[in-house]
Amino acid sequence: MKKIRVGILGAASYASGELIKLLTNHPHVTITCLVSETHSNKTVEKCHNFLKDMCDVKFTTLGENNSLEQLKTECDVIFMSKPHNYSSKHMNKLNNSNVKVIDLSGDFRLNNPALYQQWYNFKHEFPQILNEFVYGLPEINREKIKNSKYVANPGCYATSILLGIAPLVKYDLINLDQIIVNSISGASGAGKSPKAGFMYIDLVDNIRPYKIGTHQHTPEIEQELSKLAGNKNVNVLFVPHVGSFKVGIMSTIFCQLNKILSFEKVFSYYNEFYKGECFIRLFEKDQIPEISTAEGTNFCDIGISINSKTNYCIITSVIDNTIKGAAGQAVQNFNILFNFPEFTGLPNANLIQKRQEKTIKTIYGNGSLGTC
Amino acid sequence: MKKIRVGILGAASYASGELIKLLTNHPHVTITCLVSETHSNKTVEKCHNFLKDMCDVKFTTLGENNSLEQLKTECDVIFMSKPHNYSSKHMNKLNNSNVKVIDLSGDFRLNNPALYQQWYNFKHEFPQILNEFVYGLPEINREKIKNSKYVANPGCYATSILLGIAPLVKYDLINLDQIIVNSISGASGAGKSPKAGFMYIDLVDNIRPYKIGTHQHTPEIEQELSKLAGNKNVNVLFVPHVGSFKVGIMSTIFCQLNKILSFEKVFSYYNEFYKGECFIRLFEKDQIPEISTAEGTNFCDIGISINSKTNYCIITSVIDNTIKGAAGQAVQNFNILFNFPEFTGLPNANLIQKRQEKTIKTIYGNGSLGTC
Amino acid sequence: MKKIRVGILGAASYASGELIKLLTNHPHVTITCLVSETHSNKTVEKCHNFLKDMCDVKFTTLGENNSLEQLKTECDVIFMSKPHNYSSKHMNKLNNSNVKVIDLSGDFRLNNPALYQQWYNFKHEFPQILNEFVYGLPEINREKIKNSKYVANPGCYATSILLGIAPLVKYDLINLDQIIVNSISGASGAGKSPKAGFMYIDLVDNIRPYKIGTHQHTPEIEQELSKLAGNKNVNVLFVPHVGSFKVGIMSTIFCQLNKILSFEKVFSYYNEFYKGECFIRLFEKDQIPEISTAEGTNFCDIGISINSKTNYCIITSVIDNTIKGAAGQAVQNFNILFNFPEFTGLPNANLIQKRQEKTIKTIYGNGSLGTC
Amino acid sequence: MKKIRVGILGAASYASGELIKLLTNHPHVTITCLVSETHSNKTVEKCHNFLKDMCDVKFTTLGENNSLEQLKTECDVIFMSKPHNYSSKHMNKLNNSNVKVIDLSGDFRLNNPALYQQWYNFKHEFPQILNEFVYGLPEINREKIKNSKYVANPGCYATSILLGIAPLVKYDLINLDQIIVNSISGASGAGKSPKAGFMYIDLVDNIRPYKIGTHQHTPEIEQELSKLAGNKNVNVLFVPHVGSFKVGIMSTIFCQLNKILSFEKVFSYYNEFYKGECFIRLFEKDQIPEISTAEGTNFCDIGISINSKTNYCIITSVIDNTIKGAAGQAVQNFNILFNFPEFTGLPNANLIQKRQEKTIKTIYGNGSLGTC
Repeated sequence: MKKIRVGILGAASYASGELIKLLTNHPHVTITCLVSETHSNKTVEKCHNFLKDMCDVKFTTLGENNSLEQLKTECDVIFMSKPHNYSSKHMNKLNNSNVKVIDLSGDFRLNNPALYQQWYNFKHEFPQILNEFVYGLPEINREKIKNSKYVANPGCYATSILLGIAPLVKYDLINLDQIIVNSISGASGAGKSPKAGFMYIDLVDNIRPYKIGTHQHTPEIEQELSKLAGNKNVNVLFVPHVGSFKVGIMSTIFCQLNKILSFEKVFSYYNEFYKGECFIRLFEKDQIPEISTAEGTNFCDIGISINSKTNYCIITSVIDNTIKGAAGQAVQNFNILFNFPEFTGLPNANLIQKRQEKTIKTIYGNGSLGTC
Repeated sequence: MKKIRVGILGAASYASGELIKLLTNHPHVTITCLVSETHSNKTVEKCHNFLKDMCDVKFTTLGENNSLEQLKTECDVIFMSKPHNYSSKHMNKLNNSNVKVIDLSGDFRLNNPALYQQWYNFKHEFPQILNEFVYGLPEINREKIKNSKYVANPGCYATSILLGIAPLVKYDLINLDQIIVNSISGASGAGKSPKAGFMYIDLVDNIRPYKIGTHQHTPEIEQELSKLAGNKNVNVLFVPHVGSFKVGIMSTIFCQLNKILSFEKVFSYYNEFYKGECFIRLFEKDQIPEISTAEGTNFCDIGISINSKTNYCIITSVIDNTIKGAAGQAVQNFNILFNFPEFTGLPNANLIQKRQEKTIKTIYGNGSLGTC
Repeated sequence: MKKIRVGILGAASYASGELIKLLTNHPHVTITCLVSETHSNKTVEKCHNFLKDMCDVKFTTLGENNSLEQLKTECDVIFMSKPHNYSSKHMNKLNNSNVKVIDLSGDFRLNNPALYQQWYNFKHEFPQILNEFVYGLPEINREKIKNSKYVANPGCYATSILLGIAPLVKYDLINLDQIIVNSISGASGAGKSPKAGFMYIDLVDNIRPYKIGTHQHTPEIEQELSKLAGNKNVNVLFVPHVGSFKVGIMSTIFCQLNKILSFEKVFSYYNEFYKGECFIRLFEKDQIPEISTAEGTNFCDIGISINSKTNYCIITSVIDNTIKGAAGQAVQNFNILFNFPEFTGLPNANLIQKRQEKTIKTIYGNGSLGTC
Repeated sequence: MKKIRVGILGAASYASGELIKLLTNHPHVTITCLVSETHSNKTVEKCHNFLKDMCDVKFTTLGENNSLEQLKTECDVIFMSKPHNYSSKHMNKLNNSNVKVIDLSGDFRLNNPALYQQWYNFKHEFPQILNEFVYGLPEINREKIKNSKYVANPGCYATSILLGIAPLVKYDLINLDQIIVNSISGASGAGKSPKAGFMYIDLVDNIRPYKIGTHQHTPEIEQELSKLAGNKNVNVLFVPHVGSFKVGIMSTIFCQLNKILSFEKVFSYYNEFYKGECFIRLFEKDQIPEISTAEGTNFCDIGISINSKTNYCIITSVIDNTIKGAAGQAVQNFNILFNFPEFTGLPNANLIQKRQEKTIKTIYGNGSLGTC
């Protein structure tokens, strides 16, 4: 089979390291071009040392002989892993061609361009493209992604939070006015560039809250929840922390139930909502996911707890921020765009495929690890 | 000066290790007796290896020649560091003597004995003693402790949460019906005994929620907040987590303000409430405490954030769970009981003393590190 | 293709957890039987929580209806992951059948039965089977493994040390009388059972030497090096440590060169020795492997340093102890026994396969990631 | 008592943070001046956040109004905590005054100026001052320090290695031609400045060797051992690693015995050599120090193991690199220079003082925690 030609912009980023690892192991991919301004001409392993001997494409910079315009002809798809306010500035050079784009920044996630000024502190330079990008959360927007050319890969926190409470919102079970989210992310969320506060000595044995109530993932969470709620207004108070671990996000989400509901009832809603999904794992009563259960996988692990004393439902939603929260979800979107089985090239791909072939008889009642 | 004779029950516990470390460095203490059923006859360093060459009192068990009754004659004060439902069973043997007691378990923290059945799952066997114990949070109950003989040392989570929002409750600034607390504790909170789930491989790079909404510190938090609120009802939803660090607790507390308040206004309430306290550090606007700032100290570090979008006040309250959350606060209570300066034998004692002597001219406007 | 039927004894061990993860993702394997005395009747995920929804075979115990004799008929191969002195006691029940055995303990690694008394402190009960087991280090004994039915999977430390210096010994470059090895292993090396000293609080921020000069991997290292050296005597002083990380082993090996050699010369010997090996990565001059480079892979990463001041060669050899040091190497041996490509079902399998198909043009001169 | 006036150059360094913490708690010290080029005019806690509310001296830069010449008049002693090749360039401005100097860099540790070119790669600009500096390892050079004005504070690795094997060298028990040292340091050894390779994500769960055989502490180790050996030549092969912990150094030292010796015999040599030392703890037979036992203290913890198979003595020597390896040892030297008890202001000061007062009856036979 002809391999899909892939280019990556911002190839020296942490997420790109994971992406290259996944794509070099993807059976239908050939990496054509790795663009990095800071590491031009270096081998991949100079930047991502764990990729030693795994990829022989050298980093290049964009320039006269290697413009974005030219890249369109050499790639079938471009992954963009640049800081905010880069993709939106340069997307016009990629538009009007056959190249597909999966953007890992926040630049195309919000439908309302005004929110960029408010939450990201920049003026969006290409607002008219926003409605051509699909918010790439496959479990919610799979059909739209299939029919799209451009995907805005969701934020890592947003992925854990949206997947964590989508059923509660969809089935109208909670008070939408005060959804309180306490998240903690591994240090990889801050990327690879050396910076004060993210040295080993700063974070070991430590936890640090930041951007309390002001984190830029808030509007994309509210936007997507609002759509699930039939465009009702949704108000999220979101407090992220960075913790002393490398990968993973745990979101502890406090939702006020708008009626009295048992665990079993709520669990059945989740089961219904996520039927057939291969990357959602629902935890049974009194079982709770941990950062470690999702580590190294593309799973979103979800635990449900009902507190009758306060009539709150507390959701624990866990992902690996570098996989389901970034590179893995980007590959999942890639697979959808190019019509491969959604799990191709992702961790546990063989296992999921075997399940679907019924090689191992499925005896799970809760429908997780389904047939996506 | 004659040294105070100290005995410790449960001397092999994690908290006792810290307590012995502090007490061997306390200028007015001599350790008379260390009781441990599991480590009888062993040296202290066999159990707490960091105490090598620091304490030559061997562990003993209680028995015919060494009963609790006898202990009363050999000690001026007894620290009890036993699992729940031990102290309440044995306190009658210590009562009716001159010996003072500082109990680190939950057995004497709650005024209402019925709550023990509900939250601790045991029937309290000595309910009539409950009102002779003072809840030993010095910043709130200092005068009562001074006039008492028996102190119930607060729970670690409870310490961080109560100190974190006492001013908000005292000055009637928040909705008491839904105080939401997300806490994370270092693994030392689970103690020293080997158990599944607390091995290094289980917790490294991990976070795990537990007892979601059902943790036994909930009632002591509600009890003490209710007293601060003039006996109004208080409802706390408390979700603890255990994380990949050794010591420390961070509580992120979500409080709905009952009016619109600026950071400056809220800060001034805190400043007033904690005036002169030497173990409370208030963080200025946009400054946030971290687990690491309080590590190894008896400080409670408090950060305040106002979210106008939702009209919530988010408090970040951090302590070292093994010091301010256990052994250090026990020594602080000991100092109050025996009329020593409150910081004696605690980390930074010399610094605090120097400040009080004005050796270093105090230029801090916020009143922290005061004159307790 | 008909799947190979696999049984695992000691399925609750840490290594077995990794083995089940690899085997559920192996395209040619069906797991038939998971034996665990301690977890009988439980689901796999009760024991290995990261395997949630990944394996629906329940743990069983051996008993009347499920004896080792019966297991022989239900499995094509049995992996044994039991403590020392179990396999040697029970191997007679598996012998005389078609079932192949891959044993992860030390029970069949040593040719000289007397060494078991000396280093393992037990008398070997089935010494006559020892010469039917091949020491399963594929990079050194591949042909013997191919022609064998029984494989003794090497010790984790031994794997890192043997692969680290095999070329130095084979080509007679060093003094065999005093090979000094300083190794450090992640805490997973101590297994899953709760035990004092391996709690999170014991190992976080810590390193601890143990069995200084007396570790039981010493004789298998000396045995295999001696074979490489034409049966000359080899003397290894080996000091292991346990460190504050989950997986990985780094061995720092101090070898006295018996002549003056440049880095380039030594590197060329390594290149020659490991030509075509897909799981050996040789680091260029001044490049040094780290625990993290090999983490999550079946690679052995080797760095070479020449110290002219002392005429020593210092080798840094790194593996993931749970993969190349245990479960991954066991699967590699399984693949050899059943004639599958050696990388099948292992991390980076697709990548290695693509390289071999020349889909990506190989430009690496050092011969690593070859064509095994 | 009149307080000693202290100035610190390089006050923003990691070591200076620890130094300020110790000195603010030192009963006889007043900090007069904190010089930092990078943090001028900031409060101490902006740089060292754990020092919040603990020191009200602001950082300044050196300039016209605040020259080194002026500093001499405002301070009784100056601690210099600058990168290599700073102190030697500027020491001439401090010379010829009453001010004492404790230098934490390597600039004054070596007697032979030529070694600076070889190991530090700079030409020493003030070689004639070298013999006025004493190598500040109190347990070996106490009397010289007492009679000196200038102290070169030893390197962190060097401290652990020298204290670890000084008795073996002094009593002529080992082969001086090949002392092999494998050390591992916490990440704090690399200082505070953000740099690639020392981010949290780079070091978590990791170990990395560096400067294999070429580390600049090698010559000071050889120099001081040579003096102990009666100026015989000493050859050290030293390989440092950085590990996934914040503070601490463990040196595993491999020494070939030049005769057959029992543990008891070797232990008695150590006991004799370190008689009365309050900061040396000798571990009994089969007891081994760990990084954690020395953490947060000024102790050097030493374990001894005899390997009869190879006739090697393996020493495990552990310190807290930020205390005994830097700031604590600097304060110990300060105390000697100003005739305070050597433990004043250091961790466990009260305990050590109580022992000396015989308040607690000393029953330890090994002489550690003595009467310095």
